[in-house]
Amino acid sequence: MKLAMIGLGRMGGNMARRLMAAGHEIVAFDRDADAVAKLAAEGAIAATSLDDVRAKLEQPAHWWIMLPAGEITDATIDAIAAGAQPGEVVIDGGNSFYKDDIRRAKALKERGLDYVDVGTSGGVWGRERGYCMMIGGPEEVVARLDPVFAALAPGMGTIDRTQGRLDGQTDPRAEQGYIHAGPAGAGHFVKMVHNGIEYGLMQAYAEGFDILKGKASDKLPEDERYDLNLTDVAEVWRRGSVISSWLLDLIALGLAKDAKLEQFSGHVADSGEGRWTVDAAMEEAVPAHVLTTALFARYRSRVENTFGDKMLSAMRFGFGGHVEIPQ
Amino acid sequence: MKLAMIGLGRMGGNMARRLMAAGHEIVAFDRDADAVAKLAAEGAIAATSLDDVRAKLEQPAHWWIMLPAGEITDATIDAIAAGAQPGEVVIDGGNSFYKDDIRRAKALKERGLDYVDVGTSGGVWGRERGYCMMIGGPEEVVARLDPVFAALAPGMGTIDRTQGRLDGQTDPRAEQGYIHAGPAGAGHFVKMVHNGIEYGLMQAYAEGFDILKGKASDKLPEDERYDLNLTDVAEVWRRGSVISSWLLDLIALGLAKDAKLEQFSGHVADSGEGRWTVDAAMEEAVPAHVLTTALFARYRSRVENTFGDKMLSAMRFGFGGHVEIPQ
Amino acid sequence: MKLAMIGLGRMGGNMARRLMAAGHEIVAFDRDADAVAKLAAEGAIAATSLDDVRAKLEQPAHWWIMLPAGEITDATIDAIAAGAQPGEVVIDGGNSFYKDDIRRAKALKERGLDYVDVGTSGGVWGRERGYCMMIGGPEEVVARLDPVFAALAPGMGTIDRTQGRLDGQTDPRAEQGYIHAGPAGAGHFVKMVHNGIEYGLMQAYAEGFDILKGKASDKLPEDERYDLNLTDVAEVWRRGSVISSWLLDLIALGLAKDAKLEQFSGHVADSGEGRWTVDAAMEEAVPAHVLTTALFARYRSRVENTFGDKMLSAMRFGFGGHVEIPQ
Amino acid sequence: MKLAMIGLGRMGGNMARRLMAAGHEIVAFDRDADAVAKLAAEGAIAATSLDDVRAKLEQPAHWWIMLPAGEITDATIDAIAAGAQPGEVVIDGGNSFYKDDIRRAKALKERGLDYVDVGTSGGVWGRERGYCMMIGGPEEVVARLDPVFAALAPGMGTIDRTQGRLDGQTDPRAEQGYIHAGPAGAGHFVKMVHNGIEYGLMQAYAEGFDILKGKASDKLPEDERYDLNLTDVAEVWRRGSVISSWLLDLIALGLAKDAKLEQFSGHVADSGEGRWTVDAAMEEAVPAHVLTTALFARYRSRVENTFGDKMLSAMRFGFGGHVEIPQ
Repeated sequence: MKLAMIGLGRMGGNMARRLMAAGHEIVAFDRDADAVAKLAAEGAIAATSLDDVRAKLEQPAHWWIMLPAGEITDATIDAIAAGAQPGEVVIDGGNSFYKDDIRRAKALKERGLDYVDVGTSGGVWGRERGYCMMIGGPEEVVARLDPVFAALAPGMGTIDRTQGRLDGQTDPRAEQGYIHAGPAGAGHFVKMVHNGIEYGLMQAYAEGFDILKGKASDKLPEDERYDLNLTDVAEVWRRGSVISSWLLDLIALGLAKDAKLEQFSGHVADSGEGRWTVDAAMEEAVPAHVLTTALFARYRSRVENTFGDKMLSAMRFGFGGHVEIPQ
Repeated sequence: MKLAMIGLGRMGGNMARRLMAAGHEIVAFDRDADAVAKLAAEGAIAATSLDDVRAKLEQPAHWWIMLPAGEITDATIDAIAAGAQPGEVVIDGGNSFYKDDIRRAKALKERGLDYVDVGTSGGVWGRERGYCMMIGGPEEVVARLDPVFAALAPGMGTIDRTQGRLDGQTDPRAEQGYIHAGPAGAGHFVKMVHNGIEYGLMQAYAEGFDILKGKASDKLPEDERYDLNLTDVAEVWRRGSVISSWLLDLIALGLAKDAKLEQFSGHVADSGEGRWTVDAAMEEAVPAHVLTTALFARYRSRVENTFGDKMLSAMRFGFGGHVEIPQ
Repeated sequence: MKLAMIGLGRMGGNMARRLMAAGHEIVAFDRDADAVAKLAAEGAIAATSLDDVRAKLEQPAHWWIMLPAGEITDATIDAIAAGAQPGEVVIDGGNSFYKDDIRRAKALKERGLDYVDVGTSGGVWGRERGYCMMIGGPEEVVARLDPVFAALAPGMGTIDRTQGRLDGQTDPRAEQGYIHAGPAGAGHFVKMVHNGIEYGLMQAYAEGFDILKGKASDKLPEDERYDLNLTDVAEVWRRGSVISSWLLDLIALGLAKDAKLEQFSGHVADSGEGRWTVDAAMEEAVPAHVLTTALFARYRSRVENTFGDKMLSAMRFGFGGHVEIPQ
Repeated sequence: MKLAMIGLGRMGGNMARRLMAAGHEIVAFDRDADAVAKLAAEGAIAATSLDDVRAKLEQPAHWWIMLPAGEITDATIDAIAAGAQPGEVVIDGGNSFYKDDIRRAKALKERGLDYVDVGTSGGVWGRERGYCMMIGGPEEVVARLDPVFAALAPGMGTIDRTQGRLDGQTDPRAEQGYIHAGPAGAGHFVKMVHNGIEYGLMQAYAEGFDILKGKASDKLPEDERYDLNLTDVAEVWRRGSVISSWLLDLIALGLAKDAKLEQFSGHVADSGEGRWTVDAAMEEAVPAHVLTTALFARYRSRVENTFGDKMLSAMRFGFGGHVEIPQ
């Protein structure tokens, strides 16, 4: 089908390419004219403004928005809505907060427009492997867009089917790599929790490798020290172990290139999803120790010493002075 | 080669079968004569005592011990050592604490015997998929046993090779699913950390699904509630997402069979490796928030309310009474 | 001075009594006429409506609001503002979220009214001991209300002065038990963090006593078991130890009454402040492991087994089956 | 009574002084002859060797050992035991691991000697305030030493009595600041948990103040920023608030001297007790999230960036590259 792609950064550009490769027509727009020209050279229909995009689409127009931050996404949706005809559909494929989706869907509904939110995982590998998608929005609109989702998704590929999945109780799209999770916001909500889990998984591996590395310390008894080859440890765990995963594949790749990871500062950024996941846990009164502590580990990685650390020292000085026997 | 398998439980029995399928000869012994008879019917050489095992092996005898607990393993090793000829090799394939390996290796060395520790992952799936193995012990003994490890290991199979692995700096065995990690204890140490990571990964998924499930709560605003199909969520994450993993495959399998997991009590056991990993972190002064908190979540799953919980209530009563405005 | 007290629950009633004891005049109002009558019998000026309150105050009127929940507080403030004359002052002494204070102060300012937020600690003991107060709002209004705060505060009492406090760099009111923390919301913000710390302190004691109690377990080696008298342990720590505190006094009191704390269910409630503190930590990217985990421990105390626990069991079943040697 | 004090560092020296002030006779010994001479000038009986100490004591001799580390304590106990007459008593007032106490008590018992372990809190303030003591050992020996403990303890002082303590069910010594906790090791065990709690309390305050301090950040919306006077906040919380404590007194003192705590590096040491407390929690399968995470915060304070942090960055690079929309 014919679809606008608004935002041609690495994610938007690659999605457009994957869609075109599957036979869809893409009307491409970005504030950066070079990005538009580049994609047009690969077969996209270039547009010079949102109005121009609309002129080049068929009604009802479908807009896939792939922008880096919430404010720009909101502004773009407002601009599209201002000139929209009833029945047009806005699809936000970025990383929006699911409560923003709920708000947007309501506002658009009042104008006769539909809104679909798509949480997407797969990163820079998605163009080749396909994108795992979690979708929120009205049933019939999601159904109408199925060819688009099917083209973006990885499909069943070589991954084994899960035994015992029951027809009628499960969504066959899940096996193709996308689901219709529920109404507005449900897609980004599931994606948000996905990223929260991702933080926890990453931190679990990170701590494990820290313990392996620390085992070479000369503070340990000599016969309890091991100078382990972490590149090989990561590799062997990929093969038949209970903790094999795609993240472990990436660890193995990273260590194969640079066994000491010296190119990385270790100041680890965090995106909104981690914080939102903790917020959700608090709203639901669900204890989420691991996901939260994984987020805090990232905060901690970005500072050297906190005021709180100094306060600990100050207390220790206060009660212990320079005593022979520390408290 | 010819090898004794001592302990024919599910793990030992299946390993023996996998070894025989690869052409190795197994002298099988277990306290349970039925288990011995069963394996003999599949081609193993039955033995009725440790002495009988030795009589049926060639010198230097190689003993693979696959027993459930440390004390039995220790007693068995002592019994083997008592009658051993110099050069015999004891291989512990169970879940021993690595400091026990160090102690045993020293004691056996004094008698001219060798000791190899093998941490094994793969569980009930290992017979078919192969076992991921982490090996500690003397270089030349591990090399001599290579045909055994190669037969037990999964081999390269269909898992992609990691790009950039350098010859000479990495161990080619890692790509086959086993490594020689270092001297005595190194195998079980790496396996121990593996299990520590496993705890963290499992808890990360568990918390994420708890947050997904809690999102249906009628305590939340109506338009922020989602009644998500967790079976489908697990399935879709297997396909192209950043958090795909073998554990997630198992989750998808479990949810496909029983979407509410009602057959499980949720009282989660923990094996020694989780605790030992935390001990190791403390010996190295490595912060291991996630791995530790994952262990504590299991402890907490096994009790209803702690004395500490009641103490919190007692304090709240103490300072707040039945005040209108709670503290 | 003359002051309205709106809300005569345990907190509001006791504050009114403490203020009257110090010579202030209280115009008392509550939806519950009995509460008004009771306080009038103790010397307060009874009022039957907000308008009646205003009629009995002098201009500019000062309203101290002491209501249990945010929504009622908001509605009450709106009702007061609707009939207010310029210069009137609303003081919220409840447990409002500091961002609500900021919003309210702005809205009232537009009508020429002032707003003061007062975070209060002391609970049911406050009438006798005095209330520790953290105040936000305009400098001159807080100064004008100083006699009120001074009367409510504990004063210097028998608590030692902190050596080294410098005149000019510190607020002398702090030594009397109240501070002007900053502009609108600052009072409740400091109170909120206070409660966050309280959660952490409480949980630290709770865990410690859990470990003491668990030491009697017959799963431990016999000579490593201690059947400790926790009532005495709490008492002795009150006297000269580094961890003496008012919360510990309450623990000692609770254990003296009921050494097993059997009257308490251990289902521990949490108020908004704990969650808001974690939110603040996330907004600031400050790692707050202890405060957050203390909150999560309360969530966990209120459920028996989580879905996540069952998922852990399901995974363990998935990879381990009934194997002899658990993974 | 007459008592040897072995180890005249700040703790041992001050204890000796407090004992002498109460009329006890101290035979003083230290490897540092100057320390002995200094205490002799204050009234102690100087000794030049352990044998000399024994010669100057009456039988059965009582030895109070106050040494900084476990190994030296063990060596000293061995040396005393080697020349001891039956009935002599060794008292370890240092920070020994309680399992070492159990071992030592057994070994000494075989020689007809008694062993008492005393966990002591109070730090540099103890000489003046008295020492809070938790005692393990045989009932009759602890009873015989009561005058010594009574002299070291703070006594009831100005601290309020806990209402409801029942005669017969509680130990009256607790109100004087010392308890007989149980058999060998029980004293140090209770002291160990005390220190574990101390870690948790300290970290709770540290995190709270970190959040207060972070509230001035210019990354926050302007009307949500507060530049709080932390010196005053600490002071006001000492007065009538639920979180008042001796540690908070120390915080107030520290901030009064140096509001930015600039003299402290924030690299926070940890003593054995924190680790042992976590070990005990693991042996008992008690979840101790707060105490453990407080320990880990100290580990983290001592390193800049961990290998694990870098691994997180490596994974993020692996799946996200330089994508416009981060995962």
